[in-house]
Amino acid sequence: MTSFLLDSRLEADTFRIGESALNLLLLMNDSRYPWCILVPKQVGLREIYELSSKDQSTLLTESSVLAKTLMSTFSQEKMNIGALGNVVSQLHVHHVARHQNDPAWPGPVWGHSQAEPYSSDNQEKTVKALSQSALTDYFTF
Amino acid sequence: MTSFLLDSRLEADTFRIGESALNLLLLMNDSRYPWCILVPKQVGLREIYELSSKDQSTLLTESSVLAKTLMSTFSQEKMNIGALGNVVSQLHVHHVARHQNDPAWPGPVWGHSQAEPYSSDNQEKTVKALSQSALTDYFTF
Repeated sequence: MTSFLLDSRLEADTFRIGESALNLLLLMNDSRYPWCILVPKQVGLREIYELSSKDQSTLLTESSVLAKTLMSTFSQEKMNIGALGNVVSQLHVHHVARHQNDPAWPGPVWGHSQAEPYSSDNQEKTVKALSQSALTDYFTF
Repeated sequence: MTSFLLDSRLEADTFRIGESALNLLLLMNDSRYPWCILVPKQVGLREIYELSSKDQSTLLTESSVLAKTLMSTFSQEKMNIGALGNVVSQLHVHHVARHQNDPAWPGPVWGHSQAEPYSSDNQEKTVKALSQSALTDYFTF
């Protein structure tokens, strides 16, 4: 049996900040956007519809609490939620909180421009804010 | 009470091809991609998490059957599913079936290039294929 491995590009571009029974919770290493990614820990998944109905429903619940939390914690205006996977086919669902003053607005963030990595201070602050939010009801930090 | 009205830009860019109790099913008028959009028929919605749990779950069910159908009906390689709404804030969920030979691959389709409208023949063929698929269990055409 093959065990789940996070895709190496996701590994390189993100911090693992939390985990539920179903998902890894990643923070994108781009300080310009509050941007988290959910990755179901199952081997060979590419599409949401390949998950069992129960797991799809859990993904949705965790997606909605994550979206709500990013909006309120970082006072943003609009969530962008996307499952693309043209480059990294391993199923992963982006949650990007957007603001009209952010660099890519109103376009999508994907493919817009090079990420600006977090300073360690800022990364710590961001993770702390998330780990003290409603996300703790769903994820272990 | 205000009744639901489809945003005028969505109205201009799409064909209304079907309807469920919750959603309008739109076909994007861009012949380069099998591209459908689900729009919950509720006033003032911007985010998925603003729907009731029951409606979120229905949206997910209809999203998954739509994604699966677009992939199989048009022999595509990857689904791109996205709820963005930076330009049109009315909640709408894109379902774009992608192929490595399509014009925007591997980037996102949003903001990539001008749509290429369907010929009426091609539009008819596309709608016919969808209206004879598993979608009929969920949508009235």
